[in-house]
Amino acid sequence: MRLAELSEHSGVSTATIKYYLREGLLQPGRRTSATQAEYDERHLRRLRLVRALIQIGKLPVAAAREVIAATEDESLDHHMRLGAATWALPQGPAAMEEDAAHQAASEAVAALLDRLGWDAEVALAEFAPAYRTLLASVAALNRLGYPCDVEHLLPYGRLAAELAVSDLDMVQKQPTPEGQIEAAVALTVLYEPVLLSLRRLAHAEESARRFAAKRA
Amino acid sequence: MRLAELSEHSGVSTATIKYYLREGLLQPGRRTSATQAEYDERHLRRLRLVRALIQIGKLPVAAAREVIAATEDESLDHHMRLGAATWALPQGPAAMEEDAAHQAASEAVAALLDRLGWDAEVALAEFAPAYRTLLASVAALNRLGYPCDVEHLLPYGRLAAELAVSDLDMVQKQPTPEGQIEAAVALTVLYEPVLLSLRRLAHAEESARRFAAKRA
Repeated sequence: MRLAELSEHSGVSTATIKYYLREGLLQPGRRTSATQAEYDERHLRRLRLVRALIQIGKLPVAAAREVIAATEDESLDHHMRLGAATWALPQGPAAMEEDAAHQAASEAVAALLDRLGWDAEVALAEFAPAYRTLLASVAALNRLGYPCDVEHLLPYGRLAAELAVSDLDMVQKQPTPEGQIEAAVALTVLYEPVLLSLRRLAHAEESARRFAAKRA
Repeated sequence: MRLAELSEHSGVSTATIKYYLREGLLQPGRRTSATQAEYDERHLRRLRLVRALIQIGKLPVAAAREVIAATEDESLDHHMRLGAATWALPQGPAAMEEDAAHQAASEAVAALLDRLGWDAEVALAEFAPAYRTLLASVAALNRLGYPCDVEHLLPYGRLAAELAVSDLDMVQKQPTPEGQIEAAVALTVLYEPVLLSLRRLAHAEESARRFAAKRA
């Protein structure tokens, strides 16, 4: 299809598509003349991913480019490409302070992984951004004196494991390896606000059950 | 205790405490002379909350002030104060576009609440920020063509409900109503990065189980 048709099918304006092409977020089409190029389903899929990252995930262009490059790195096996692509997604701040709270957090997280039966070596290499974010968040809770030992973390970990099964089921419904990697990245970003908003709504519901004055 | 002792016990510098006092984030101490004031446990607790909101939650000062004002509004019952305080927490963008994707999202979310048995009237008044965020996120998934019907949302909703029970148990361990409201706000903010990072780690673990090349 031509650029105009790609715009029509994707709902992305031609100006924005040209911008994504210049920024290397969208792979070039197949040149058919000096001024025209052909685009196909792979361009449509990529546009969908770029919109998920930039418009919904609010990633800066440079970060989106890094995520997309990771989805394309064919030197990695499927699991590693999934990992590389989601590792490139921005995380919360994870500055490390080496204090007693950090030490307690390391121990709590190690105990948590053990109780969950997760493979610390592969899934949780210490340099994984999510691992660092988790450690920093638990240390922050410790520093502020809020409960965050393994018993408090376990329900979160168990539920995360259940979500991962349902998320990976969604990913595996994509027929191609490339589609699976794109879906993994997009669903990681797009389901985060779904999860956080549902948790807040569940708080409201549970709080109403426990505390609300009786209603007519 | 004096300002210097409040600083020592809280780990917050006297300059920062004075800034919080000027900004109305910390209630004034009890004046004991023209230049001195006494502070107590309530000031320590408030400082802990302010640090959770500003240093960890990265709330702007104005937003933190709004959250704190809501925790103090004695015209509300306990459930409503909990709600008001967490409603004031910032949420993701929730701009509404009234299109087919939005319509489909409204229907999916209504079906979800019904299946979960949540009280739409109380917990999910349409103006609740979390409800708007959820609707906007589901609509965004629809627009991008990713699966987000009630069957996909249900595992998230069920797990959110389980988390809410464990979160509210933590909140209820605080002995006073004020302590409960402060804990509800702080734990809402502080456990969000814990939850998101555990979900990403669980993805890595589940992906390794399904896709990784066999290891020695």
